[in-house]
Amino acid sequence: MSVFDRPSFQTMRELADLLSVLNVLSWDARTQMPSGGNAVRPHHLATVNAVYTQRLTDPALRRQIAIDQKGLDPSSDAFLMLSQLDDAAERLARIPLPLHHEFAQTKAVATAVWQEARPASDFALLRPHLERLVSIKREMAQALGFEDHPYDALLHQYEPGVTLAQLRAIFGVLLPAQAALRERIERCQAPRDDFLHRHYPAERQRQAALSFAQMLGYDLNRGRLDISMHPFEISFTRHDVRITTRYAEDFLPTAFFGVMHEAGHAIYEQGVSEDYTRSAFTSDYLNAYAVGGASFGVHESQSRLWENRVARGRPFWEGQFERLQAFFPLQLRDVDVDEFYRAVNLVRPGLIRVEADELTYDAHVGLRVELEAELLAGTLEVRDLPEAWNSGMQAALGICSPDDRDGVLQDIHWASGQFGTFANYTLGNVMAAQLYDAAQMALPELSTQLRAGECAPLRAWLTEHVYQYGRKFTPNALMLQATGQPIDPAPYLRQLNEKFTDVYRLEA
Amino acid sequence: MSVFDRPSFQTMRELADLLSVLNVLSWDARTQMPSGGNAVRPHHLATVNAVYTQRLTDPALRRQIAIDQKGLDPSSDAFLMLSQLDDAAERLARIPLPLHHEFAQTKAVATAVWQEARPASDFALLRPHLERLVSIKREMAQALGFEDHPYDALLHQYEPGVTLAQLRAIFGVLLPAQAALRERIERCQAPRDDFLHRHYPAERQRQAALSFAQMLGYDLNRGRLDISMHPFEISFTRHDVRITTRYAEDFLPTAFFGVMHEAGHAIYEQGVSEDYTRSAFTSDYLNAYAVGGASFGVHESQSRLWENRVARGRPFWEGQFERLQAFFPLQLRDVDVDEFYRAVNLVRPGLIRVEADELTYDAHVGLRVELEAELLAGTLEVRDLPEAWNSGMQAALGICSPDDRDGVLQDIHWASGQFGTFANYTLGNVMAAQLYDAAQMALPELSTQLRAGECAPLRAWLTEHVYQYGRKFTPNALMLQATGQPIDPAPYLRQLNEKFTDVYRLEA
Repeated sequence: MSVFDRPSFQTMRELADLLSVLNVLSWDARTQMPSGGNAVRPHHLATVNAVYTQRLTDPALRRQIAIDQKGLDPSSDAFLMLSQLDDAAERLARIPLPLHHEFAQTKAVATAVWQEARPASDFALLRPHLERLVSIKREMAQALGFEDHPYDALLHQYEPGVTLAQLRAIFGVLLPAQAALRERIERCQAPRDDFLHRHYPAERQRQAALSFAQMLGYDLNRGRLDISMHPFEISFTRHDVRITTRYAEDFLPTAFFGVMHEAGHAIYEQGVSEDYTRSAFTSDYLNAYAVGGASFGVHESQSRLWENRVARGRPFWEGQFERLQAFFPLQLRDVDVDEFYRAVNLVRPGLIRVEADELTYDAHVGLRVELEAELLAGTLEVRDLPEAWNSGMQAALGICSPDDRDGVLQDIHWASGQFGTFANYTLGNVMAAQLYDAAQMALPELSTQLRAGECAPLRAWLTEHVYQYGRKFTPNALMLQATGQPIDPAPYLRQLNEKFTDVYRLEA
Repeated sequence: MSVFDRPSFQTMRELADLLSVLNVLSWDARTQMPSGGNAVRPHHLATVNAVYTQRLTDPALRRQIAIDQKGLDPSSDAFLMLSQLDDAAERLARIPLPLHHEFAQTKAVATAVWQEARPASDFALLRPHLERLVSIKREMAQALGFEDHPYDALLHQYEPGVTLAQLRAIFGVLLPAQAALRERIERCQAPRDDFLHRHYPAERQRQAALSFAQMLGYDLNRGRLDISMHPFEISFTRHDVRITTRYAEDFLPTAFFGVMHEAGHAIYEQGVSEDYTRSAFTSDYLNAYAVGGASFGVHESQSRLWENRVARGRPFWEGQFERLQAFFPLQLRDVDVDEFYRAVNLVRPGLIRVEADELTYDAHVGLRVELEAELLAGTLEVRDLPEAWNSGMQAALGICSPDDRDGVLQDIHWASGQFGTFANYTLGNVMAAQLYDAAQMALPELSTQLRAGECAPLRAWLTEHVYQYGRKFTPNALMLQATGQPIDPAPYLRQLNEKFTDVYRLEA
């Protein structure tokens, strides 16, 4: 009998299946479901969630894990998988079952309400749901335990080992340096980007984006692209990894780079070892989320790497701009490679996080992390959130949204109960830069390869050092192993300086 | 505390949720899922199915039901719901749990294999899966118990109270009378139908079909139309009822009347009382299928009624043909109402059941019922099925398929483990005619209303007498209550005679 036939592995696989099922229900609700379905889909999600939580927190499971771990090499995959499952069961059991159920139901309803509230710019519609969610999350943080700040308890769920204090240190380095770089840029002549605002028909955008996503390595036999209000990647194991986007017919980058971003996530999921399908190395049991990446931050590092380091990079466009021109011969007829490269790296403070450029993105994230920390500490009330948002945006980027639609309501995260996850976008930026540096060291021909549209060597390096392992290692262990360094913002700042010196022709 | 707060009602609702979840997984697999998903989706279905079966067959549930039924009026909805749940639990418990699991997994795999086998006309690919399914179904019939024939045990699951002997009696009346009518027709000049074979672009067909489906009463706020190889209707409660079709660009009726048919099913689901959402009156607990109709046969009566009695009827087209012409002005420019009405009721024996006309459909069904009965009795082997199919088609309709694609592989039913369900198509035809007669008695202006495209009065009558009740009554009780008669093929034969005397201008 194989080790993996032991009873707790059967439970591990079934729990993984239930997480994939939750993802299917969620994907459907966000891309296909008619509005009437909102009346019952929250019940469906809550019921599967309850079954899942019940099985994971059944004390018999931890006893069985202890039995099944006997005699296993503590460094073996089998042992580690069981340890991760056990850790999730232990942490989850800290939270009372009724609170779990309430959370599942509340976030399902709130997500549906957000779908209406955002286009209507109606914060009041979402507010009671958000208040309930913040209250639940504060209770959860208390139940999970923390040393310094309730935010740490939630952050640990997504990025084990990182604390609010560390984040503040990273933002403390990044944000002033980025602001200084932006200041130098503001004195420069902005490159032209008029052509990005021409009419780009959605269907043609879809074809172009899929073509380039496949070039990066997204396998459509195991994936598909749909439309949703807020773009996302979601997986039901490595065999079925789906992405979404939204099309702006008057601005090419929204969907095009959105798809490159989500394809980066998807390539990671599709690259996890087949041996880890339906296991702890591809299931975030603690967060009840079927996901194959080491952490939210490491996952984000891959969307960032493929979007920003590859698909917004000079080498890539030097070789591949003609390919894009073939999709849009009229719209791009009077544009050369240099103009295109500079335009898609234009720095312009804007309201929308998902459309932000590389030099303002972290300011968006920093604001959200601070607001979350204050909500959780109880020093900010949900009712004061729109005002705090607006004054925060003013301070960070000097702009303010005329409504809540493009302000505090723009992200689905809070409505879907994700508090403590925004930090991972910046952690992703930081880690992407470190991993790209390491890959470049190992692949001296990387720029030449990307120029030729050959993404396989980079993908192979990332698969060998990151993707194949799924959730086997913690982010810190993975980064040390792959790059030889702990998490460090220096390479990211160096790459930003290099890129924007080039884009804006700054004096060195 | 409301009666419905008693513990077994909470279980009832959660079991209903799990059935809706299975339907979402199945809908996705058949309409959206990339091919890679086939590697894992069967596991997802099997896991949810196992959770469902485990909870339904937990002996504690039947004990709780007995407690919760105490003091309830035996004719109350609450009492009846619990009785139905109890009956399903009792019957399901007759089947050993491992057999349940094997069935769930086998049919999931077989359905996926059928998706490949049919276009390739490769019966050998499906054969081992079908053999396993027949063997499982024979075991299940033994476990469920029967008096005369193993087919009865399965038929009872879908159409309680009906037996193979009764079916043979119905077919014994219907098939010879239909054959005799076909013989009279064969001597007549066939109406022209050349215009149905013109080029009808799929997207335009989609718009037309949706427009007419909405006219019948299909609510798109609680529904949507997708493409699948085999058309179907599926519901995740009355709030989300989806239909599918397939488009033949060179034959209008395939998709158009296919959608009218599935819309008929959907209108039934959407019309069940809101009070019955997530209850035994909208859940087929025995077959693990979220469905709001009294039985498969009664459900089919509504697809037949809306497709054949309404949307292929003379009054409807007398008033609505111009509306269809507006969608296809070129294709239908030289066609008048009479020609269109006669063309869409053309009788022409063909290979494909779902495209069969009203005078040959029951012959397709009769063949399948006999083959199923023989497979279950063990007098026919799966390996001999293609040959038995072909000789049966020859005997029934005088035609033979050149390949298995349009022969024995044409239906998804057997691959998806549905043995004993085909009979319900003919039961549906029979009951549709009885219900239409009863509605016409109650609505003297019905023809005038249908001519004007006013389907609300007919829908209201059907909602009052059939739809609202969901699965509350058995088919026999429902038919007696709605029409005053037991199941009887006479009205159906009379309506067929009237229609085809008109269409073919037969002498009375």
